[in-house]
Parts: sequence; structure tokens; C-alpha cells
Amino acid sequence: MASGKTTPGGNPSARTTGGPPDTAVLAPPAGTLTAGRALTDYLREQATAFLRGLSLRADREAEADALLRGSARRIAGVLHTYAPLAEPGWAEALRGELGWLTSTLNREPHHTGRLARLLEALRRLSTAGVPEPVLAEVEGRGSGSGPLALGAARAAALLERQLTLARTRAHSAALQAMGSSRFHGLADSIAVLASEVPLTAGAAEPAPAVLPPLAAQAYQRLCDAADALPLGRAALPYNAEAVQASLGAELTADLQDAPWHQVRILLRLARYAAEVPGAEPYGDDRLTEAAAVLGRHREASECAAAVAAAARTPRIAPATAYALGVLHADQRHEVEAARFAFSRLWQGLPPAAPEYDHPLPGVREE
Amino acid sequence: MASGKTTPGGNPSARTTGGPPDTAVLAPPAGTLTAGRALTDYLREQATAFLRGLSLRADREAEADALLRGSARRIAGVLHTYAPLAEPGWAEALRGELGWLTSTLNREPHHTGRLARLLEALRRLSTAGVPEPVLAEVEGRGSGSGPLALGAARAAALLERQLTLARTRAHSAALQAMGSSRFHGLADSIAVLASEVPLTAGAAEPAPAVLPPLAAQAYQRLCDAADALPLGRAALPYNAEAVQASLGAELTADLQDAPWHQVRILLRLARYAAEVPGAEPYGDDRLTEAAAVLGRHREASECAAAVAAAARTPRIAPATAYALGVLHADQRHEVEAARFAFSRLWQGLPPAAPEYDHPLPGVREE
Repeated sequence: MASGKTTPGGNPSARTTGGPPDTAVLAPPAGTLTAGRALTDYLREQATAFLRGLSLRADREAEADALLRGSARRIAGVLHTYAPLAEPGWAEALRGELGWLTSTLNREPHHTGRLARLLEALRRLSTAGVPEPVLAEVEGRGSGSGPLALGAARAAALLERQLTLARTRAHSAALQAMGSSRFHGLADSIAVLASEVPLTAGAAEPAPAVLPPLAAQAYQRLCDAADALPLGRAALPYNAEAVQASLGAELTADLQDAPWHQVRILLRLARYAAEVPGAEPYGDDRLTEAAAVLGRHREASECAAAVAAAARTPRIAPATAYALGVLHADQRHEVEAARFAFSRLWQGLPPAAPEYDHPLPGVREE
Repeated sequence: MASGKTTPGGNPSARTTGGPPDTAVLAPPAGTLTAGRALTDYLREQATAFLRGLSLRADREAEADALLRGSARRIAGVLHTYAPLAEPGWAEALRGELGWLTSTLNREPHHTGRLARLLEALRRLSTAGVPEPVLAEVEGRGSGSGPLALGAARAAALLERQLTLARTRAHSAALQAMGSSRFHGLADSIAVLASEVPLTAGAAEPAPAVLPPLAAQAYQRLCDAADALPLGRAALPYNAEAVQASLGAELTADLQDAPWHQVRILLRLARYAAEVPGAEPYGDDRLTEAAAVLGRHREASECAAAVAAAARTPRIAPATAYALGVLHADQRHEVEAARFAFSRLWQGLPPAAPEYDHPLPGVREE
């Protein structure tokens, strides 16, 4: 997707934190934070959070799962960004297992969130939109709500039934996964992570020389992917792009949304990379805001898909189908609104990461 | 609706056209354009256009009707704005008949326009939204268009059937109206208008003293009504206000849209008022642009209502109803987009008309 290129010609003046900038790269003096130590400290912190989540799970399941998901995503993300520092076979196997766990644990809260979002949208779409006194004044006109308002109630009931069923299934699947030997193997690996991380030779170099360029690469991949988005069109309000495929092939919405979802993931990777002590933070608070905006983009996109799926239920009443159609278009407009917000936000962010030489020969080009 | 207030303290420097500004009001010297003459000239021009429309009708009906509608609207509008200059009983009776004619002649082109707009929207909503090569590349995935795309085709067929029927009925009604004795009476009044207009005593005053304040009142009524619109909310893109009532009582959309329709009419009155020679033009080219935007607002609003009506057809398939729901929300978003465009445009227009004393005691406060 993104090239992640860095060009030759390092820019040491852009390094503002950590040890003295001119420290020799291959022989860090005693007391200097090595890249491996910075990474190990961060991974240990996340592993501890993971294990705390595990121990909490019997009593406070939702809170525990949020801890598990957050730490699993961070461990996997940081192992991706700082790949040249950790033993590749070990890191890739662990990332694979963490991916399996997070996708398993994500499903239930996603269904819960979708249902809440859709019921709220239906409520909003059925609401007056004019002040109550005005409505009361003209109530005598007799042009009442009719069959279409009934459709909203039925659509809500249908979505509630379908998404509650999906949530229950996701819950069972998560329970089953947490009891599996696969999960116990993963939990063991995380417990080991809290004490030791298999590092490469490059991890012995000073953190300020190694971490910022790798964090910059993660930010550069984000910038490349974001700049490839159709931001010009998205910045025009009411461009009607996201709703365009509402009645076309299902596939077209997926194809249109995928690059935005990809930027959301790259944004998360860039944020996690910056959390490691000694790495440079790129962007600013707006990165967090941009992440929230792209989170809304994904929610609206998935809600629209859930509505389209509900509309394919056999033998639904036309009024229900009509309400689902309105709701689908509404969610696709929320997709468009999120793209608009992102395009405005992105224009205010630093255009690209500073340039560094590749610090280690093993840096991956993806 | 709008108060049309003008405050005491005239501003003669704002009068830039016509005779010398200090001419005595009650005794215009020979050669000065009187207000009555300016009004008569304008009405004669419009009456001539109307009669040309009538004579064209056998050969080029659509063109002829556009001429008839345009001149009828202008005559009625100008008689409204410059009411103190024309004999009230005559003017009000004529305006009533012109209103009947324009509403009769409007129906057919409205149905034609609505159908074209809705078919175009359905086409847009069923279109890929991703470049063709990308679609072709992934076509093998087999996640085809399914029942929802079928719904779009059926919705198009249903709307085509209903709006074509409505158009045919409107056409018959217009033909019948044009053959009625009521219409012949109106055509006779217009023919008389081309030669003489029953004026009041005030019409003998100089045009520059009388017309600009009345045109300013029309502009002020527009400003008052536009400033009372929820422009702050409309200026926020994706505020989701117009779509809010999509699934609520039918009435709520009407109530929400009515003040915007009213501004559209006041805008037209202000533009026509400025066409009379000797009147001041207020606003600028953006008034024309604002009129076009509010025209789109009305079209989208009426299209959404036509879609909701089609959705109430008994025994339609769920897929059809779903497509109609998507289309309804789409048109309500077009309503919202038009409000957004208007709110941006209005901020750039002169805030209010210059102040004048009432030129004549008979000026109406509405």
C-alpha cells in the first residue's frame, strides 16, 4: 500500500529528545537507553496490562476485554513498527496470535456499538425536526405519521433482533476462544514477554538513534496512504460520494471504504509507535482526533452494511424496508461526513515525517 | 411574515439613477419619468411577452408556457411590490387570476422535472462509485448486486409510472384551463394591460422618488425572512437537520421547509422589483445564484415528498421500498445541501436595503 520510503540524508536536527545527538551509533556508553531496553520496557508494560485484564475477567468482563484488546493491539503494532529490533520468527508468530485474539474479542462490542448507533439514528430520523409547540399547533391538520413511522419501529425491532443474536454468538465465540488451548498458549507467550523479549543485535544501539527513524517510517506510511485518499472531493461538503453506491453492488462500498480503513490502521500504528519511550511523537493532538473521526467512519460504514444485510431478510414489510433504506443512506452520509472531517483535519497536520537514513539494514519496505 | 419596516430618515444619496435628486416631489417637470410610466412600460413589456406566448402555443407549447409563466409571475410580482401605484381592486383581482394560471401551468413541468431528477438520482445511487477498472478486477469475488439493485430498477419504474400519470393529468388540466372562459377573461385583462394600467394619484410622482423605496421594502422583506432562517445550523456541513424528519410525520418536513420556500418567493419578488426601470437593484449577481439554490431546495423537497408518496403504494416489493427509502434520504440530503449553499451565499450579500421614508401614505405593511 504505502511505500514507506525514506530518502538518504539524515536530519539530526529533527531529533529533539533522548541522548546527545552525536553519540557513536555502534558503542553506546554505559547508562544510555538502548533501543532494545526501550522496546522491552514498553512491551512489559503492555504485557502487565494484558495479564491484569485476564485476572479481572471473571468479575468485570467488559473492562477486562477492553484492557486485553488495547494491550494486544499495542504489542502487535509496536512489534510491527520496530520489527528490526525483535527476533522476526518469534515476533511474527506472536503478532498472528494477537490478531486472532483481537478480532475474536472485537466482535461483541462492535455489535453492541452498531445496535446503539442504529437505534439512535432511527430515533433521530423519526423525530420531529421542528419545535414541539409548532407541531402541537398544527396537529389538527391530520396529516399524521402514517405507515412510514410504523416502518421505523419495525426496522428497529428487526435490527435489535439480528444484532442481539449476532452479539450473543460473538460472546459465545469469545468465551470459547478464551477457554481454548490456543489462547492459553498466547497468554503464556505474553507472560514470557513481561520478563524477556527476544531481540536482534541492532536492539543494542542507543534508542535515540534507532527508534525515531522507525517511528518516522510509520508516520510516513500513514502520510503516503492518507495523501492517496480522494481528499479533494471529500473536502467538498455534500459531495454525495459515499452514498453513491447505496443501491449498487455491495462490493463497491467495500472498495470505496477500504483505503480509509487502511489509513485508520496506519494512524493507530503511528500513535502506538510514538508511545515507546525515546521515539519521536509525530503529528500532534489532531492525530487522536483524526483517529476518532476515522473510527466514526468505520462504525458508520459497518452500520450501513448491517442495515443492507437486514434489508435482505425475507418477507419484511415494505414500510420496514423503506425505513431501512432511509437508515442506510443516513449511515452512508455519516461515512461522508467523517471523510469531510478527516480531510479538513489532515490539512492541518505536518505533511510528512522528517527524513532519516535507515538506521539498520533490516528495515522492511512494505 | 416579514415586517417590511422602514425607519424615518431618508437617504437621498443612495438614489443614483433617474432625474436630479432635489426635484420637487409633487410637481415633476415635463420630461421626468413618472413612477406610473415606469411601471406601465414594464407591465406592457411583460404583457407583450404573455401575448407572444399565447400565439406561440399551438406550435411550441413548452416554450410558450415558459413565456406565459414568466410574464404572469412578473406582472403579479411587480403589482405586489408597487401596489401603492396601481388601483388596488383591479390589481388584486388580476394578481389572483395570474396566481391561478401560474399554478395550473407549473404542474406539468414540475412533474417532468421531478421525474428527471429522481431517475438521475437513482442512476447515481446505483453507480459504482469506484473506478471501472477496480470493479472489473474484483468482479470474480461474486458479491454481486443482489436484490437491492433490483429494487432500484423497480423503484424507477414505479416513479416513472406515477409521475408520468401525474404529468398527463396536469397536461389535461392545463389544456382545459387554457380553453376556459376564466382564461379568456384573464387574457383580455392582459391585452388591456398592454395599452393602459389603472394608476393611483401617487403614480404621477417621479420614478426615482417612488420606486427605489418600494423596491427597498421588497428587499428588506427578503432580508428579514432570510435572517429568521436557521442559517447558523445550515452553515454547518452534515448537520443532518433536513433528513431528521424522514421517518416522522409527513407534516414535519413541510413545516421545516416552508420558511425556506417563503424566502425563495421573496427573493423572486425582490428580483422582479429591481427589473422595473428606475428602481434600484439590491443585492447583486448572488441574488440570482441564491434563487437557483433555493430552486434546488424546493425541487429536492418536492422530490422527497413524491418518493414518500410512492412508498405508500400498496403491495410494493420490499426491495422497491428499500430503494425508495434510500432515495428519500438522498433527496432530503440535497435539501440540506441547498440550505448549506444558501447560508454561505447569504453571508456575502448586503445585509439590508438602504433606509427610505415611506414615499406614499398607502404603502402596505405586511
